[in-house]
Amino acid sequence: MAGSSSDHLVGSLTPFFSPRRVAVVGASREKGSIGARVLDCLRSGGFGGLILPVNPRADSIDGLRAFSSLSAIPDSIDLAVITVPAHLSLSIIDECAAKGVPAVIMIAAGFAETGERGARIEQELRTKIQQQGIRLIGPNCFGLMNLDPTVRLNATYTPVLPPFGSVSIASDSGGVGAMVVMAARRVNLGISTYVSLGNHVDVNVNDLLEYWEQDSNTQVILLYLETIPDPHRFRRLAERIGRHKPIIALKAGRTTAGQAAAGSHTAALATNDRAVDALFTHCGVIRASTLEEWLALAVAFSNRRRPAGRRAGILTNSGGAGVLCADSCEKEGLFVPPLPPSVSATLASFLSPLAALNNPVDVIGLATEDQHAAATETLLRSDALDALIIAHLSINVADNDQAAAGIIRGIRAARLAGSRKPVFLCWMAEGDRDRHFSVDGEAIPTYHTPDIPALVIGQLLSYEAWREQSLDDVGLQSARKLPDLNLPQAKAICAKALLDRGPGWLTTKEVQTLLAAVNAPLLGRLATDPEEAVRAAETIGYPVAVKLASHHILHKTELGAVCLNLTDAQAVRQALKTIKERLVQIGKADAMEGVLVQPMVSGGVELLIGATRDPHFGPVIAVGLGGIHVELLGDVQFGLAPLTNRDVSRMIRNLKGYPLLTGYRGRPAMDVRALEDVLLRMSCLVEAIPDIGELDLNPIIVLPEGQGCTVVDARVLVQAPSEH
Amino acid sequence: MAGSSSDHLVGSLTPFFSPRRVAVVGASREKGSIGARVLDCLRSGGFGGLILPVNPRADSIDGLRAFSSLSAIPDSIDLAVITVPAHLSLSIIDECAAKGVPAVIMIAAGFAETGERGARIEQELRTKIQQQGIRLIGPNCFGLMNLDPTVRLNATYTPVLPPFGSVSIASDSGGVGAMVVMAARRVNLGISTYVSLGNHVDVNVNDLLEYWEQDSNTQVILLYLETIPDPHRFRRLAERIGRHKPIIALKAGRTTAGQAAAGSHTAALATNDRAVDALFTHCGVIRASTLEEWLALAVAFSNRRRPAGRRAGILTNSGGAGVLCADSCEKEGLFVPPLPPSVSATLASFLSPLAALNNPVDVIGLATEDQHAAATETLLRSDALDALIIAHLSINVADNDQAAAGIIRGIRAARLAGSRKPVFLCWMAEGDRDRHFSVDGEAIPTYHTPDIPALVIGQLLSYEAWREQSLDDVGLQSARKLPDLNLPQAKAICAKALLDRGPGWLTTKEVQTLLAAVNAPLLGRLATDPEEAVRAAETIGYPVAVKLASHHILHKTELGAVCLNLTDAQAVRQALKTIKERLVQIGKADAMEGVLVQPMVSGGVELLIGATRDPHFGPVIAVGLGGIHVELLGDVQFGLAPLTNRDVSRMIRNLKGYPLLTGYRGRPAMDVRALEDVLLRMSCLVEAIPDIGELDLNPIIVLPEGQGCTVVDARVLVQAPSEH
Repeated sequence: MAGSSSDHLVGSLTPFFSPRRVAVVGASREKGSIGARVLDCLRSGGFGGLILPVNPRADSIDGLRAFSSLSAIPDSIDLAVITVPAHLSLSIIDECAAKGVPAVIMIAAGFAETGERGARIEQELRTKIQQQGIRLIGPNCFGLMNLDPTVRLNATYTPVLPPFGSVSIASDSGGVGAMVVMAARRVNLGISTYVSLGNHVDVNVNDLLEYWEQDSNTQVILLYLETIPDPHRFRRLAERIGRHKPIIALKAGRTTAGQAAAGSHTAALATNDRAVDALFTHCGVIRASTLEEWLALAVAFSNRRRPAGRRAGILTNSGGAGVLCADSCEKEGLFVPPLPPSVSATLASFLSPLAALNNPVDVIGLATEDQHAAATETLLRSDALDALIIAHLSINVADNDQAAAGIIRGIRAARLAGSRKPVFLCWMAEGDRDRHFSVDGEAIPTYHTPDIPALVIGQLLSYEAWREQSLDDVGLQSARKLPDLNLPQAKAICAKALLDRGPGWLTTKEVQTLLAAVNAPLLGRLATDPEEAVRAAETIGYPVAVKLASHHILHKTELGAVCLNLTDAQAVRQALKTIKERLVQIGKADAMEGVLVQPMVSGGVELLIGATRDPHFGPVIAVGLGGIHVELLGDVQFGLAPLTNRDVSRMIRNLKGYPLLTGYRGRPAMDVRALEDVLLRMSCLVEAIPDIGELDLNPIIVLPEGQGCTVVDARVLVQAPSEH
Repeated sequence: MAGSSSDHLVGSLTPFFSPRRVAVVGASREKGSIGARVLDCLRSGGFGGLILPVNPRADSIDGLRAFSSLSAIPDSIDLAVITVPAHLSLSIIDECAAKGVPAVIMIAAGFAETGERGARIEQELRTKIQQQGIRLIGPNCFGLMNLDPTVRLNATYTPVLPPFGSVSIASDSGGVGAMVVMAARRVNLGISTYVSLGNHVDVNVNDLLEYWEQDSNTQVILLYLETIPDPHRFRRLAERIGRHKPIIALKAGRTTAGQAAAGSHTAALATNDRAVDALFTHCGVIRASTLEEWLALAVAFSNRRRPAGRRAGILTNSGGAGVLCADSCEKEGLFVPPLPPSVSATLASFLSPLAALNNPVDVIGLATEDQHAAATETLLRSDALDALIIAHLSINVADNDQAAAGIIRGIRAARLAGSRKPVFLCWMAEGDRDRHFSVDGEAIPTYHTPDIPALVIGQLLSYEAWREQSLDDVGLQSARKLPDLNLPQAKAICAKALLDRGPGWLTTKEVQTLLAAVNAPLLGRLATDPEEAVRAAETIGYPVAVKLASHHILHKTELGAVCLNLTDAQAVRQALKTIKERLVQIGKADAMEGVLVQPMVSGGVELLIGATRDPHFGPVIAVGLGGIHVELLGDVQFGLAPLTNRDVSRMIRNLKGYPLLTGYRGRPAMDVRALEDVLLRMSCLVEAIPDIGELDLNPIIVLPEGQGCTVVDARVLVQAPSEH
């Protein structure tokens, strides 16, 4: 899978994570300065290698020998952490090059995020490091940590070290990433490495994914992203790596307002949130919707236990907490099944007569440690459940110790008896909120509100479902294997139209030829005069529809330029006459290319297939129920090209109106396979031809099974790719 | 508004909240027992009145003189807190009655929530207190607190006292309520009174609403409810009281699973979550969707400042935090407008050159106290914003003091300069999370995640919008003022059908008469033989539709018993023949009441109006777009009878498909007023006639403006009210 180029990439990043000799350029005695803070952090973190401060005005800093410049250092350097301001960055890179430094972390802000002048420096920086073969993290970043006990590298400016563990973090925001690092101990989250990406002039999230794929410490990957560089590479990597190491992403700049903020913050391109959703769905990335959920998922995925199904047990000491947990299970699609009588009987044998023995089980507020332990063990060992949520609500700080001890004893006993079921705690114990639950090395995911456990269980199940899909399904190539696509011809049509007329809509004839080339033909025959139209109608067979063919007029129905149910030649002639008159009335007599003569189609379901081109993510493909369903009710699903067989199947089945296609209320089942086929063809078309800016098959009518689909109307916009 | 019966009610509750002499029945020396805990709490809470322990086996407890029984106490008693087990409760109530105790709090569990035996005791308890005129809180409850400094009553068993403030809490779950009380100090929430309702055998949430209406300490009402007793009273009270004192509810048992749990927990009736939503919408109750949101809203509403509009300013020291806040603003329908150049220029004059001066404003991580203060003041004083969110993300615990001091100085300066804008803090400062922000007595709502401030601003705005509706609109009577309703006739039809045939669907003739009586007539004429059908068709005018009339067969289309577009007498006769043959084929020749002959209707929009009867909330009325829109896409709005003018307007306008009614894509605007009128009529009908169990007008076609609506098909189920 990962070939030698990947090995090369991983090798180039190794000095960041496992350096032996680290220079701090701009190391300073001035308390509170970044230079002083980074030096402090490196030292207090317990870094095992050599720390080499560089400062032109000091021989030593805090007892460490300092050097006046990089070149003054006698030995080689693996990593330089640069804390000097932006305007000095270029000359420092020259020094790094001269010294042969392979890896540089640049902390300072003042680059593209601050405007044009900064952007120019950033561009020069990019050019320089590319020329010199230096790998760079930043600028405008918070640095990097590697918590591996054999390394202990804290090249950031927060002295707080999280516990070592299996989660690696990349963050587009130094602050948000640092927040996780600082919160890690409180939420009992073990961190492997942390990288603040800053303006990711060189090292980006994709590089880190490849690094972490081969890093045995990293088992879970946590991403805070404001932009996704090279989405195609991201998709390929995430799909491969995510199967073994779950990737949990908080993608900010979701919305218009957020995107404006992202733009000013990291000079990122505006992205389309629907495209992000489609991308993550494609490649199994777990998307958190809030910061809190993101952290909660990191904690849950760090524990390797996974629920085998949707049956949740709830154990509580407060009826209200149980109800709230049950509500959230239902909301997330989990079941809270009644317990088998034998389990209830076991519970009854040791719980208070006031306890509730159904699911949720309420041990009541005054339960003893033994009761907590026995109830926990009993539920964890029951085959009727796939996961256990324990909701503890404390009314007395003094009671928490015995409840916690009982819960831990119960989990331990169940584990010793072979229970593999995951446990999630909702620990609502005021005055004792930050208690950790670890049982023989297993960190029990612990939260403070009743809605989080169900939410993370739902995400664990979704992830496992994605992961268990057979690898064959995942092949991105499947869509390209359609044998009857004449993409060169399609490409030529678009290129010619663009050359002849510039950007704009294709003519009906062009659309007809284009769609024929990809074997998703536009219904009907084009005719340029009444007699040709009549001949077309007679070939097709009455009744027919006659519609204006014009690439200048997009709303034909509103204009009255669509005549339906014509039953004879006279009606066809009259239709052409009427359409011409309408065009004359609006002063567009020239706009008429002819008419499209079509058979009347009935007995199918109207849908829309469309494609637009996101400036960053490329072609975004949509499918939805036709007419008002798309426009008002928003029943549309999106995917990114290239679509796979699995993608088109998922997109269509996720439509709320999908039952209309499967034999709704006695209607026949529709030819879903044919619809999937057209979606794949459109994906191939827009992927292969960057000239296509927009494409609409609207409506496309899916006919009963075995009868295929029919494209009743279509429009295609061509434009030079740079104009998208 | 609140008449003398309300005064009486408030008077009867006063001994709970302001007793002078409190007996603790079951007061005990046994550490950890409820009796001992309650006594401890009363004493340590600093209660100013007399505490009188009752214990048959002790002369004194912890230095307090104890009495062997209530009757042994020489003076009168205002409140008895009863901590003895359920099986002793009835005899204790007898003692209370003998002693003339007006108010009793019963803590013990073991009543209806534990099964039949407990339910019997509970029923006896109910009877007894009603006979004796004793007011009772509980049983199965956590007690009551009144934090008024002149009272300081803690009649619960948690010793943790929250700070005094303006929020009163009623909770169906002792634990959930206690959780708020215990969290109050941490989240800087001032509490006035807290009541654990338990099984609310007597005092319920409605009583408390009336009490709090007159309680000057209480300004915000926080409810945790698993059931809503007497929804009509709740609606009337909440609508009146909520205008002055916002009511924030967490309604649990939202879903099937949750309801099962609620049933076993408080022996509550299962409720329908949609009805709850409709009820809360009717009366302006603010519904929290999670425990966290509920607390967050309590904190926000405690501060009396309200945003004047949707323009949010965001001030942060971390770009990422700013992006996340902006995302959540967008999600909640707030704007994050660009700042006027003058404001940006002011900010530039004192912030770092690395700061971002647009909205979100990023002061950067190294900002000084002065910079925090000046930026806060500048944004709070800007007329371009309606609310300010300050998102602080700490990377160094040592930096928090100066940031906090700056923020407080900035708010103070802005307040002195006259700014009334609300401020919300997102304080993400690891190691310093529980810091409070109070500025000259104003508690600044402070949260820890970027999504909460936007969410609470959205809810504040919704509440104000509800509150500012003119009182005239609110009158529940408006729906009943329709002059042309013949409800007695409608009632007689249903009663007769029920008497003659028992529960079941009305015949088409009955439906026709019923709908005519409320002036929402069913389209067409009923005919029982071919010639009558032809005469009807000729009166109506061709083309017509002929449909089976039968109360035994509900799916007429599937049966082929609907014949459309009939253009002459011959076709009408043939239609009857066909329909009869179909019935014979399925062995239901007897099921035919005749046929309905209708004109063909075109040019309108199909909708559905329906009503069902929730066993607890009564008639629930639905309106939605017809056909698959309701069934697959769920575009339906619900309301509870009686609907007001405002309700029907809101329900229709909240449909996603509403634009179809207002002149969509060149179609005419539809007669929305007529649709509203029919909705009101159906509300009156089902409210007035409890025999109606279900009602469907499906479809009802709304015609272009001025042409009204047409009920094309309808069915009505009658059943004895007890069967609902």
